[in-house]
Amino acid sequence: MAEAISFLAPRADVLARRREIVADLADLLPPECLIHEPRELMPFETDAFISYRRMPFAVALPRSTAEVAAVMKYCHRYGIPVVPRGAGTSLSGGAIPQEDAVVLGLSKMNRILDIDLANRTATVQAGVTNLHISESVSADGFFYAPDPSSQLACTIGGNVGMNSGGAHCLRYGVTTNNLLGVKLVLTDGTVIDLGGKALDAAGYDLLGLVCGSEGQLGIVTEATVRLIAKPEGARPVLFGFDTSEEAGACVADVIAAGIIPVAIEFMDKPAIEICEAFAHAGYPLDVGALLIIEVEGSEAEMDDMLKSIVEIARAHKVKTVRECQSATEAALIWKGRKSAFGATGRIADYICMDGTVPLSQLSYVLKKTSEIVDHYGLRVANVFHAGDGNMHPLILFNANDPEDAAKAEAAGNDILRLCVDAGGCLTGEHGVGIEKRDLMRHQYAEVDLAQMMSVRAAFDPAWILNPSKVFPLDGRNAG
Amino acid sequence: MAEAISFLAPRADVLARRREIVADLADLLPPECLIHEPRELMPFETDAFISYRRMPFAVALPRSTAEVAAVMKYCHRYGIPVVPRGAGTSLSGGAIPQEDAVVLGLSKMNRILDIDLANRTATVQAGVTNLHISESVSADGFFYAPDPSSQLACTIGGNVGMNSGGAHCLRYGVTTNNLLGVKLVLTDGTVIDLGGKALDAAGYDLLGLVCGSEGQLGIVTEATVRLIAKPEGARPVLFGFDTSEEAGACVADVIAAGIIPVAIEFMDKPAIEICEAFAHAGYPLDVGALLIIEVEGSEAEMDDMLKSIVEIARAHKVKTVRECQSATEAALIWKGRKSAFGATGRIADYICMDGTVPLSQLSYVLKKTSEIVDHYGLRVANVFHAGDGNMHPLILFNANDPEDAAKAEAAGNDILRLCVDAGGCLTGEHGVGIEKRDLMRHQYAEVDLAQMMSVRAAFDPAWILNPSKVFPLDGRNAG
Repeated sequence: MAEAISFLAPRADVLARRREIVADLADLLPPECLIHEPRELMPFETDAFISYRRMPFAVALPRSTAEVAAVMKYCHRYGIPVVPRGAGTSLSGGAIPQEDAVVLGLSKMNRILDIDLANRTATVQAGVTNLHISESVSADGFFYAPDPSSQLACTIGGNVGMNSGGAHCLRYGVTTNNLLGVKLVLTDGTVIDLGGKALDAAGYDLLGLVCGSEGQLGIVTEATVRLIAKPEGARPVLFGFDTSEEAGACVADVIAAGIIPVAIEFMDKPAIEICEAFAHAGYPLDVGALLIIEVEGSEAEMDDMLKSIVEIARAHKVKTVRECQSATEAALIWKGRKSAFGATGRIADYICMDGTVPLSQLSYVLKKTSEIVDHYGLRVANVFHAGDGNMHPLILFNANDPEDAAKAEAAGNDILRLCVDAGGCLTGEHGVGIEKRDLMRHQYAEVDLAQMMSVRAAFDPAWILNPSKVFPLDGRNAG
Repeated sequence: MAEAISFLAPRADVLARRREIVADLADLLPPECLIHEPRELMPFETDAFISYRRMPFAVALPRSTAEVAAVMKYCHRYGIPVVPRGAGTSLSGGAIPQEDAVVLGLSKMNRILDIDLANRTATVQAGVTNLHISESVSADGFFYAPDPSSQLACTIGGNVGMNSGGAHCLRYGVTTNNLLGVKLVLTDGTVIDLGGKALDAAGYDLLGLVCGSEGQLGIVTEATVRLIAKPEGARPVLFGFDTSEEAGACVADVIAAGIIPVAIEFMDKPAIEICEAFAHAGYPLDVGALLIIEVEGSEAEMDDMLKSIVEIARAHKVKTVRECQSATEAALIWKGRKSAFGATGRIADYICMDGTVPLSQLSYVLKKTSEIVDHYGLRVANVFHAGDGNMHPLILFNANDPEDAAKAEAAGNDILRLCVDAGGCLTGEHGVGIEKRDLMRHQYAEVDLAQMMSVRAAFDPAWILNPSKVFPLDGRNAG
């Protein structure tokens, strides 16, 4: 296992007092809401960024905002690190704990509190899964737009923490664009409400600040989100190209023309083969790159938009254009795409990068990515949200070979630097976590990081919330 | 003139050193960029919230980020208050200075720095007017979406400070949804870049935080904004109703059905009469309330959406439905709406409220607003962004009658409290400024305000940036 990324050294005073702390927490939570036996702690030692793991000494699973507040108040008083956790699906290690930490799991807070169709909002507890929101309003013709591939498992609290995206965010925006309010437990246990059902809010946009702050500014216990009416119809269309460069250039031209479909997903040849073998989605196997472009609306609207897109694709020598013929086929096409990470996991270990680039740089960055991975003697599969410029190269390697793992990590870092240098950024939707923490200096000047840390200090001066994440460990006092 | 709102007492040390400060500033700026003669300072003593005025002792008009940084560095060293100013079109008094302040005007920074159509972005200096951005890319088929009624005059820097909206924000979002990056001069003169051309950004969303922070976190000197492709067609349609309540209920039902036109603007009978007399837009005069609903897209799309809207309007006994027949007519319809404030100013003094409510409360709040204004023996005209729930009651009064002015202010405050109590908030797009500052406690608990002030302190611990605004004066040390 690669160990290039370090964690903060555990606080000796906390480690020494572990038993007492557990006993104190047992006064605040019923037995079924507190885990401290090493065997039972094991599921919490890592998340979907499985290259790293640390065993926490306790997991609190509160059932209410009041219980979260009680745990925070206690941990704040004694300077005990707290690592919030939703479903543990973070791809950047955002939920990986540390030895001196209490994991604060929100999984028991899984109730939908209010569905307000008149105002098109849903208010849910943080542990409600992303998909559950859409399922709850589907019969009424609505859905919640951001749709990470992990939407069956990931929770809205984690989505807020990471400002999660998904395939359909090209049109509907990411979490921050669909979030109207949160209930936030501050580090000292104070509870505040940010935002609400009405547009905007007076004063500073703390709601926007909290979204994507990776659990470092407080614990989100409830979220109010925007519901969107389902379109009249939706149709994914497959566009096959000879090369990744042609497909990338086509995406750039579609967006530059001001055409915004619901989704433009990209797969290169390895990704097509991996996903097709798993999902039998009917992807063409004779092309070098595939775009899944979804249009929606009335038949006339879909036809209109498709016509313009096909014209642009032709200028890029599109080889195959295939409209799906049925809802079943459409579902299969999306199943293939959404299971890309799982399907890749069947054939190799992988790390998934999450860089974002301006669309004009897409073809260039694809070409360079391939050169970087070649240089390390590894393989890559690209499957990502092309319309947003949000790239996900999956670097394939053998996790049992430490040398291979180190190479994969080095290649990943090179790719992220490439994205930043091309005018992009380190992360589109997976967050910084521990994975990209040490690359933050490549994106930001010291003054930028200092200002962010100064904001962090305005919420958590003792630095107890998810402490090893986001900021390089050696700059902690810069704020 | 009403004087219900107080300002911070001027700092005696700054007042005593005014001449020296001006002399020092003259070392940093050329003579044409520094104003200090009382006669020349007069245009800067108020903004579009004309009920209050204070004379600053100097106005700096820097031409570059470096000059802004030099002024900030100097003012920071000596604790001199700085009030940033764009075009001075603030309706909440956001740009009103104070006697001990240097006004930092961005009007000379009016260059468009970069138009990048491939990535659909424009980067402009803070003093560029809102409309100038759209004009610069119009020939290429693009526009910048947020469109405050003052868009001919107001600047992008002010738009960022106030998170400005506009009629077409129902579909395209307000400033924060269309802003990709800013260059920000911090209080001590440090320059940082937030955001950029790519989606999202690693670390905290300081860009979102700065948007709407009313010049209190730093001075925005450049902004990168999203450009949007012009629709194939656009068509404003007039819907006349017998009563405001029916029109309000129709808006709520359209949005609840998940139909999002580009704009839904509302005018009550007084507003219709005022605007029609001014612009001769052809508004029907035999109705009690009017909606301007704009649809856009292909002819088929527009027809589809209109059909659904007309059906809902019929259920609310719509009296008139009139589609405009030409581009000239469409332009007139919008001219009438956008000149509403100016046209009202011809017949009376007014203050314009900016509360936002959940749409389900629209009819109720309209009815109550009318009762409140009646109670004070005043008149009101309602003209606002109904689709967003962003209300703009214009309270008419006689500014030469102090009693009348006090009544208008009291009625305004009652209306804003009503909006908050109905689940809404104090401001949709005009900002808190000084106007709503003392009502912030009605919206927020002390802990909420304390957290905002704590964030402010992370940027401006000496509290020199736009100091009399946003937060009640007596809670300044709560953070």
